[in-house]
Amino acid sequence: MASAESSIERWFEDYPAGDVFDIGSIEVHEQEVLEFARRFDPQPFHTDPVAAADSHFGGIIASGWHTASLMMRLLATNFLSPASSLGSPGVDELRWLRPVRPGDVLRGSVTVLSARRSASKPDRGLIESRIEMHNQHGELVFSTRAVSLLRCRGIV
Amino acid sequence: MASAESSIERWFEDYPAGDVFDIGSIEVHEQEVLEFARRFDPQPFHTDPVAAADSHFGGIIASGWHTASLMMRLLATNFLSPASSLGSPGVDELRWLRPVRPGDVLRGSVTVLSARRSASKPDRGLIESRIEMHNQHGELVFSTRAVSLLRCRGIV
Repeated sequence: MASAESSIERWFEDYPAGDVFDIGSIEVHEQEVLEFARRFDPQPFHTDPVAAADSHFGGIIASGWHTASLMMRLLATNFLSPASSLGSPGVDELRWLRPVRPGDVLRGSVTVLSARRSASKPDRGLIESRIEMHNQHGELVFSTRAVSLLRCRGIV
Repeated sequence: MASAESSIERWFEDYPAGDVFDIGSIEVHEQEVLEFARRFDPQPFHTDPVAAADSHFGGIIASGWHTASLMMRLLATNFLSPASSLGSPGVDELRWLRPVRPGDVLRGSVTVLSARRSASKPDRGLIESRIEMHNQHGELVFSTRAVSLLRCRGIV
């Protein structure tokens, strides 16, 4: 798939605490599940459909890091803005709550928990957000709490 | 790269609290950094060498989820065992501490913080571990605290 850089223009001020963002949905493709796992997470329940069918998962499931990367795809495309995004120092409470399987469609949402301007660098701010993904059955499959560093409006 | 499933046979009992594991090293390739980011994290400082050179990072850096996935590769290949690995409910305190750049070589280590047998399912146990990756300059670039679910020895 080609790159799909966000064309959204948003700044720190556009992510107030309490706002909830629908960040769209993404399908989980079996070929990508297998390729991702063979490169990054070569465990039989991710890479081998026969062994996976025999495992406690009952079939191939996506690597948890693949699921996290699909979340990042939604975040980069539909939440963050190249105008202001400065990266992230990390995430907490990352949870893989249910298996993610080929054919699943994951829908993401982001709730801004807090937003504060940097005291030392007033041209930027930090937001803390809760990110969730639900599958097509409405089941929560993934959640985490992330910090994002964002440029403020009108300061270059 | 072909799949490289671990051939290690280890069980819950082989990960006692306090043990430290060297999980080997892995090189960060520019082409993979760009491909990963174009698919999963299309932000200019990950995907566009010219824009990245102009950014506060001063050049292309790997998506944090790519770095986490490289960690998983080391974990799956040199720490976990297909005999016992049952997956993970999640991680905490995931930190991207320094930029990871093309050409970097990351070395991983795992310290087992605690190990406890499941009370409800005595055929398995949970270990909590601290995972770190250092670059070729000895700088800590990534760390997290992970929980892994593992089968006990000799119980099928």
